Amino acid sequence: MSQGNDTAPTTAELEEIYESTKNWARWGADDERGALNYLTAEHRAAAAATVTSGHSVSLGHDITTQPTPETPSPAHHHMLSSGDALGSSGVPGYEATQDYVGTAVHGLGITHIDALCHMFVRGEMYGGRPASMVRSSGALANTIMSAAGGIIGRGVLLDIPAALGVEFLEPTKSVSVDDLLAAEEAQGVTVGEGDLLVISTGRDARRISIGGRLDPFAGGLAGLHPRTLPWLHERKVALIGSDGISDHMPFTSVPDWPFPIHMVGITGIGLHLIDNMRLDDIAAACADHGRWSFLLSVSPMRVPGGTGSPVNPIALF
Amino acid sequence: MSQGNDTAPTTAELEEIYESTKNWARWGADDERGALNYLTAEHRAAAAATVTSGHSVSLGHDITTQPTPETPSPAHHHMLSSGDALGSSGVPGYEATQDYVGTAVHGLGITHIDALCHMFVRGEMYGGRPASMVRSSGALANTIMSAAGGIIGRGVLLDIPAALGVEFLEPTKSVSVDDLLAAEEAQGVTVGEGDLLVISTGRDARRISIGGRLDPFAGGLAGLHPRTLPWLHERKVALIGSDGISDHMPFTSVPDWPFPIHMVGITGIGLHLIDNMRLDDIAAACADHGRWSFLLSVSPMRVPGGTGSPVNPIALF
Amino acid sequence: MSQGNDTAPTTAELEEIYESTKNWARWGADDERGALNYLTAEHRAAAAATVTSGHSVSLGHDITTQPTPETPSPAHHHMLSSGDALGSSGVPGYEATQDYVGTAVHGLGITHIDALCHMFVRGEMYGGRPASMVRSSGALANTIMSAAGGIIGRGVLLDIPAALGVEFLEPTKSVSVDDLLAAEEAQGVTVGEGDLLVISTGRDARRISIGGRLDPFAGGLAGLHPRTLPWLHERKVALIGSDGISDHMPFTSVPDWPFPIHMVGITGIGLHLIDNMRLDDIAAACADHGRWSFLLSVSPMRVPGGTGSPVNPIALF
Amino acid sequence: MSQGNDTAPTTAELEEIYESTKNWARWGADDERGALNYLTAEHRAAAAATVTSGHSVSLGHDITTQPTPETPSPAHHHMLSSGDALGSSGVPGYEATQDYVGTAVHGLGITHIDALCHMFVRGEMYGGRPASMVRSSGALANTIMSAAGGIIGRGVLLDIPAALGVEFLEPTKSVSVDDLLAAEEAQGVTVGEGDLLVISTGRDARRISIGGRLDPFAGGLAGLHPRTLPWLHERKVALIGSDGISDHMPFTSVPDWPFPIHMVGITGIGLHLIDNMRLDDIAAACADHGRWSFLLSVSPMRVPGGTGSPVNPIALF
Repeated sequence: MSQGNDTAPTTAELEEIYESTKNWARWGADDERGALNYLTAEHRAAAAATVTSGHSVSLGHDITTQPTPETPSPAHHHMLSSGDALGSSGVPGYEATQDYVGTAVHGLGITHIDALCHMFVRGEMYGGRPASMVRSSGALANTIMSAAGGIIGRGVLLDIPAALGVEFLEPTKSVSVDDLLAAEEAQGVTVGEGDLLVISTGRDARRISIGGRLDPFAGGLAGLHPRTLPWLHERKVALIGSDGISDHMPFTSVPDWPFPIHMVGITGIGLHLIDNMRLDDIAAACADHGRWSFLLSVSPMRVPGGTGSPVNPIALF
Repeated sequence: MSQGNDTAPTTAELEEIYESTKNWARWGADDERGALNYLTAEHRAAAAATVTSGHSVSLGHDITTQPTPETPSPAHHHMLSSGDALGSSGVPGYEATQDYVGTAVHGLGITHIDALCHMFVRGEMYGGRPASMVRSSGALANTIMSAAGGIIGRGVLLDIPAALGVEFLEPTKSVSVDDLLAAEEAQGVTVGEGDLLVISTGRDARRISIGGRLDPFAGGLAGLHPRTLPWLHERKVALIGSDGISDHMPFTSVPDWPFPIHMVGITGIGLHLIDNMRLDDIAAACADHGRWSFLLSVSPMRVPGGTGSPVNPIALF
Repeated sequence: MSQGNDTAPTTAELEEIYESTKNWARWGADDERGALNYLTAEHRAAAAATVTSGHSVSLGHDITTQPTPETPSPAHHHMLSSGDALGSSGVPGYEATQDYVGTAVHGLGITHIDALCHMFVRGEMYGGRPASMVRSSGALANTIMSAAGGIIGRGVLLDIPAALGVEFLEPTKSVSVDDLLAAEEAQGVTVGEGDLLVISTGRDARRISIGGRLDPFAGGLAGLHPRTLPWLHERKVALIGSDGISDHMPFTSVPDWPFPIHMVGITGIGLHLIDNMRLDDIAAACADHGRWSFLLSVSPMRVPGGTGSPVNPIALF
Repeated sequence: MSQGNDTAPTTAELEEIYESTKNWARWGADDERGALNYLTAEHRAAAAATVTSGHSVSLGHDITTQPTPETPSPAHHHMLSSGDALGSSGVPGYEATQDYVGTAVHGLGITHIDALCHMFVRGEMYGGRPASMVRSSGALANTIMSAAGGIIGRGVLLDIPAALGVEFLEPTKSVSVDDLLAAEEAQGVTVGEGDLLVISTGRDARRISIGGRLDPFAGGLAGLHPRTLPWLHERKVALIGSDGISDHMPFTSVPDWPFPIHMVGITGIGLHLIDNMRLDDIAAACADHGRWSFLLSVSPMRVPGGTGSPVNPIALF
């Protein structure tokens, strides 16, 4: 198992993967939750039952307001009134500070979840719904509201660099099914139906190793090989997350399939994706506890018409 | 126990409550977590152990983008690219939609958590820190980052209207310690150290009953009587939340103490407050399960320098 | 000439007005400037030649950040760094304050100009261009960039309340061609080709007279009668502005033609419209100078893809 | 007259320049307009009288929404409803598109005007007002509202590269008084009281010559030598603008005086500054007309409490 790239798939192979993993009919014509349907109350209860120490960990990055190569369009955090204006309300004794926070939901820096209306294949989104259902005034279907009740269940971390004996994956490295299986074996965990699968590529370690400045556009990001898609489909995971964007940066050279994990995963399989997770603390906590599964809670903002949401996932051991 | 108001406290009484419940020395001079310190790993593990059905419920309202009396300055949800621009990336096959979401953190409509830098008493915030530490460029202490690791523990719902046999509290009603005790008894639950206490006043039912339009500025909101503060202090709750803002609207007529729950609670006791929760689903779920405690997960955005965050709390039964 | 409403037109009459005043072929198939083509260099030079006193006046309202019935979605003015953070740059001696300003371009409060892509009739905008040319990623034609070079020429104020001997128009009043002619005669001015025509309805005086709170949705706004459209077309004005929105609020009851001045004026004639001007100072200046024409400068923000811009028009006498 | 840098001033020399050019007492203790007081009605009328051809030119750059080294925090232009949502109003026949535009006011890319509250020297702004008057809730003095009535008068372009016989100034070049005088002589124009002085350094030509990507932080910007400040003071100009920021980038190495033109100019002399103007069209128009003066109109957004405003200055020949 080298750090080199697997052979690239052809367009025809990706077409075939897309068609064979498509879940549009699995949960009925009206379904907008996709693979989240795998995550049942029983699964949630079982995940809660594994909690032992009560140690909790965040898997989110801080919101960034300064432009960087990873966040060329960062968030805004504007103080509306700070300590210099405590008396401005006109109500004696009322001394409050306030702020405003805003952000583009997607991108390569902010920890966020993709709704099923975020991605299309040839003008169709999950369930075969047309582009015209995502309007300038908001999306009419497959919005983040499908996950507004919260996503809570068993999280599983597969730490690929650890399984491969490296500190981090090179950006050209494609995570293969063999790599996923190797991590399962090394960690003694089996990814199963309804799991919230989190895959580490060591992005944060890589950023540190190259001096703190990581440019995904110029320097790339490691990602999953498209041939992992059938495996994700068979394992019936409810969601995948990554410290990268699951797909490679820059996008693949396969014609018409630049981001196969997003394209097949979101549109075909119905996977909500979490991008740009922070995985150092969770990896340490997994090592401390000697187990790579935990209760994971992901709670999107309830944005009607939204294509996703910033999130701060919380693990409980 | 009438629906009428308890007697109003005097300024002197509030001063005394403020001084006697102040936790500034309890967890060391550098502490910025306040009552969240009551919420330990043991508490979290115990809360997880109570999970049975795996049923999960959101306690957050939808983000509103239209101005209403409850949200005169609502959030922004701007589509950055919708279905009409799928081909705009220039990358063949890349068809994505994107959006922007922004919001004032505080107010009377959005479900949000207050950081300990949100409120001051005579120029001092929690820990005695000065107003100058909350700057136009962001807060330097007591920020929402104190809770960025997530708040997960035992949630307890006290349903005051149910305990009092009414559908909702009138806005002039002050929830007293007796009311809280009555709810505990009616529900068979005891609020204890480290709990995330959620108090229902029936706000959503009241909105429906008056035709769907509730104006907190003109028509008021029910709140906690300031004499509940010592009780909250003694019970060592880690956080309180409400379908209102815990305080009354309009503010009390006690000179210099317009919002005593915010002022004493946040500044003195060190309580993070969650305002404007949606409590209909959780009340129904409590009734279904015959218990008024559950695992509750609150996960703020990780905003360095922030005075709070929109949240979408998730309960797991 | 009563303050009552003229007879309402029929849908058929509006269809006829739309077709007979349409300028789509006048300036070539590629034209995106519409009636601004009437405003020539000669016209601008002649307007400048009328300047005498050098007195200048703004015709814009202050940007509002507080919600009111006229601005339910007001602008944002966020200080990014104020006097409490002078030393935050890290550069000794560099002490600067900064802010952010943002606004929805249209609406009933902010002084703004409408680009020709702001309005459609049955899916077509000026020049017969389709709805698909205004995308979620920005407009591709008829944008405010057509006026980005600035609009400077002869402004003419027609003060209708003054001509009718009233302080302000009642919201039900429709300004007729007779009213416009009466104002011309009373003021001794003739509206001509290339003029920037500003029409006062006394909105600001009306707001004051009713206690400072004007609700256009509930209480309406005076506007132009649709039968003024052929007159505007014949006079070859380059642009019209108003202290209202030129159209009535609430919209007319003529089926399919709710805002005929916007619909015919922008889409058919190619008129850029300026809404919500402040006209008290300019009216006083006109009276002082004994003339109702002046050099007028309107300078939109250069927003590629924009549907309009906030403006602060400046008159020079 | 070389392209090399003049000798750098000392801190003591800048202190002396600051004190000797300070205008705090010139127009009374309450004055907030500073050097704009030089711009009188007579001046404006005289400027209008010079108009001949009626040719008009914009001196503003397009608003940029993509991050670049010149605009690391660019503006936002968000479509609120585009052509895909024409029917969304619910009013038959009402088909409108709308958008939102927002921007940080200052920086190295956007064409904007600095209010007199934008800059401080040792905690004092123009008129000796303290830092506490610029609050997180907005500035209380020296705001952009001082110029809200518009700035219209005689503009003069001094084209320094043309006078020096080069295409553009190197970033290390400091424009000296000799350079200004040379440009005056070459162009046959004399800068006088009340003028709106625009100084070209050839920034746009330089950007083109280096391939379209100009990084002011790394590659610098040409600026005025601090010894031009007494000259600007003596000439009694009302305002200065530049295609750069008038100051050098990176800032000077004189201790405590990193941006002397901003610091002395805004704070001491009371000069409003316009940064990042686009000067190619105006230079061409000046050459065409054989004169380097024109009527110039600058119209800030009327932002109460604002530290400046984006502007699109318009010249009329």
